Amino acid sequence: MYSERIRLAALHDKVVSAAEAASLIHNGMTVGISGFACAGDAKAVPFALVERASHEPLSISLITGASIGNGLDKLMAESGLLARRMPFQADPALRKAINDGKVMFIDQHLSETVEQMRSHQLKRPDVTVVEAVAITEEGHIVPTASVGNSANLALFADQVIVEISLRYGTDLEGLHDIYIPADRPERAPIPLTRPDERIGCTAIPIDPARIAAIVISEYRDSPSNVQPADGETQAIANHLIGFFAQEVEAGRLPRNLGPLQVGVGSIANAVMAGLVEAPFENLSMYSEVLQDSTFELFDAGKLDFASGSSIVLSAARGAQVFGDFARYKERLVLRPQEISNHPEVARRLGIIGINTALEFDIYGNVNSTHVGGTRMMNGIGGSGDFARSAHTSIFVTKSIAKDGAISSVVPMVSHVDHTEHDVDILVTEQGLADLRGLAPRERARAIIDNCVHPDYRAALEDYFARACERGGQTPHVLEEALSWHINQERRGHMLAAG
Amino acid sequence: MYSERIRLAALHDKVVSAAEAASLIHNGMTVGISGFACAGDAKAVPFALVERASHEPLSISLITGASIGNGLDKLMAESGLLARRMPFQADPALRKAINDGKVMFIDQHLSETVEQMRSHQLKRPDVTVVEAVAITEEGHIVPTASVGNSANLALFADQVIVEISLRYGTDLEGLHDIYIPADRPERAPIPLTRPDERIGCTAIPIDPARIAAIVISEYRDSPSNVQPADGETQAIANHLIGFFAQEVEAGRLPRNLGPLQVGVGSIANAVMAGLVEAPFENLSMYSEVLQDSTFELFDAGKLDFASGSSIVLSAARGAQVFGDFARYKERLVLRPQEISNHPEVARRLGIIGINTALEFDIYGNVNSTHVGGTRMMNGIGGSGDFARSAHTSIFVTKSIAKDGAISSVVPMVSHVDHTEHDVDILVTEQGLADLRGLAPRERARAIIDNCVHPDYRAALEDYFARACERGGQTPHVLEEALSWHINQERRGHMLAAG
Repeated sequence: MYSERIRLAALHDKVVSAAEAASLIHNGMTVGISGFACAGDAKAVPFALVERASHEPLSISLITGASIGNGLDKLMAESGLLARRMPFQADPALRKAINDGKVMFIDQHLSETVEQMRSHQLKRPDVTVVEAVAITEEGHIVPTASVGNSANLALFADQVIVEISLRYGTDLEGLHDIYIPADRPERAPIPLTRPDERIGCTAIPIDPARIAAIVISEYRDSPSNVQPADGETQAIANHLIGFFAQEVEAGRLPRNLGPLQVGVGSIANAVMAGLVEAPFENLSMYSEVLQDSTFELFDAGKLDFASGSSIVLSAARGAQVFGDFARYKERLVLRPQEISNHPEVARRLGIIGINTALEFDIYGNVNSTHVGGTRMMNGIGGSGDFARSAHTSIFVTKSIAKDGAISSVVPMVSHVDHTEHDVDILVTEQGLADLRGLAPRERARAIIDNCVHPDYRAALEDYFARACERGGQTPHVLEEALSWHINQERRGHMLAAG
Repeated sequence: MYSERIRLAALHDKVVSAAEAASLIHNGMTVGISGFACAGDAKAVPFALVERASHEPLSISLITGASIGNGLDKLMAESGLLARRMPFQADPALRKAINDGKVMFIDQHLSETVEQMRSHQLKRPDVTVVEAVAITEEGHIVPTASVGNSANLALFADQVIVEISLRYGTDLEGLHDIYIPADRPERAPIPLTRPDERIGCTAIPIDPARIAAIVISEYRDSPSNVQPADGETQAIANHLIGFFAQEVEAGRLPRNLGPLQVGVGSIANAVMAGLVEAPFENLSMYSEVLQDSTFELFDAGKLDFASGSSIVLSAARGAQVFGDFARYKERLVLRPQEISNHPEVARRLGIIGINTALEFDIYGNVNSTHVGGTRMMNGIGGSGDFARSAHTSIFVTKSIAKDGAISSVVPMVSHVDHTEHDVDILVTEQGLADLRGLAPRERARAIIDNCVHPDYRAALEDYFARACERGGQTPHVLEEALSWHINQERRGHMLAAG
């Protein structure tokens, strides 16, 4: 087995237990691990670290691609293992530890982590652990279902641990395209002009002398649990497809719409699934996470090519796709998240960026991360990388949450992740607001008329009218601007009487 | 004279009066004009439009590069000429009209206006007026002291009016580098890897058949009136130079610091002037507006090359520079603002971006535009283009304003232009906060300890402590978060008792 999975024979004697490999990691270290949206995470070594943390002082700074699965962020947070965590997470227990101030969470644009490390503005890892399907004859690392930050985290680390996953076949080799920008001032343009181009190599080109340990792993990736479309997400998808049709008709979008980027989650997945029935052909994706809907579109003959940084599937879809991978492989590429999310490429290709908002305000500023302006949900992720540089930047959300106690459209967002400058289109199940070329007062009119739930429309109309009486480019009644959030916190409903 | 300034003889009969040229512009039109930071503005035709607006119904949408001089934004606003204005302005009278809701102001990232026009997501101009030093044998337009959006506004317009400025010499020809990105999907990488490279042509390559009129203009650009450094701006410059020295020492910056981008205004100019005495050599600029300080650095032998989109000088410095232009010409290039500000290039080159904040909060979110969250000052300008993609993103401001009635450091900014993710370093005369790699609670500690004026430190300490008791990734006392702004509005001081 080793000879197929570890093709550089000199590395065979590096195979050790997870506990032995984990012993390379000491208290106070900065540790990188592979993993993006619960795909391709290192698992065996992190589990061993959690075990050690139960009986010895062990606290690390952990850097991943994005969220990781198998409950590892929860276990690491609860064991006290995590002093610092970046650049993204999506685990309820870790979220609580972050909001309690126990874990310092550095929430970053996902394209920027390794760039800041390259310029030594972020500390580089002491040890990096990467899940792989194989190590090549040259000692290079072939990742599994994500690239994420794995390549640079491995290249920048003093020591590298490889977890050879027996759960992914070696037929994944060739899926990845590892391109590493040069240090400045020798940096060249990223030579990518289409989603289906390959510009790098198929494995992470590290010096095998830095592979300090290899662990054989039988852990599986956590399956995604995307919810099926419901009435609201279907309505959002329909509004968006109507908009695309109008744009094609007007000559503002090509018939294949241009490369699509779609955020993670049920609403975004429903929007993509909606394209199965829509009259657009030869679609392509230049995105971050490829979900079930990507493969539905392949199977429907609608999608020509998908570029991403990770593949995250439900259990059934995962078994089908990875059980018959040759069927899809030539139409897929996984890139480092620095490249999948790179503003340079996003702007050049002219992506249609579709991301999920937690809330937005009447002027089109978007909050993607902070409940009540204070408590972290997951992190900004790649949304900022895409929204700023997209051809058309779209945010979607249901108009209400918690049985109507919360309006997703508010007078002023309690936290800003995306400013009005980066938000072109807003969609709720109520309708779509096209904000392109509008001044803030006009944006407010379009948003109130199209996106707000009827239960909140009168209150927003009233706020906006009174704000306009006071004047301003972006009129506000400052002492009421956050009152909806305060009502919700104190009385459980945004419009509860004071 | 015409033969030197209008080298395509077929265009000689297009020379008309400003009033005749202006008659091409009709009520309801979208009009583009040259001009960026009061340099290279079209002037004769706009003055003629103002005159017409005094006695006929005339209302237009006006698109420029950025702010324009000669009081034209004021005159146009007061004459009722402006229905819509984008993407930037800096005039008190226009500001009032905007805040009164009389002019719809579309405040944009300055690199994005023509991109949105290229994809037909913004309406293209019916008529564009460009100030030029000459028209070439091919009928191409050689701009004056700015490029701004002039190239694409001319290329996209149905009709073009050229104002031949007799106030700039034809020796400006060769200064400009006009590069126009192709339409998608044929878009290629922008082939710029150093500030001093030239990638385009020296004149705006339009079909001369679309030059509908030529006006001979004797108007001058408005001189800048940058204030000399005072104690506070000098202290800001000193903090920043100390930081640069530390970064060079630690190997995180090269000895020439990398390309510098510096915003417009007195603080930014003082910071640049501070580099005259600092121990850094072979500096370069990849910036937007080149001010007096650029030429001070040239004269001091500190600066090798400066790339910008406009040259805006005081009267004395302007006379010296343009009177002896050969002395500087080989070390200068002016580019379209789409290229000077392009995130692709900014990130590739690794610029040090220095921009001015109106206020920032304890977590490092920056407000660059809106007083009291409501009233527009100037616009976001290029700050977002640079801050997002910079190697190191720096914002500077004095710690207090209005004799101490206003703290520039607040619990929560009343408007967000730059989120915490895009802000690495904050500097006031009090000191410098290095926020790189820090979580929000750590950012707050660094900001309160280093940047806040002593008169406000205890109040911010108190706010932050009480916010942390409530918890959260970004702790806030939501009902007090904007209270400093409300106090200031109602009682004239941010800490006035309620």
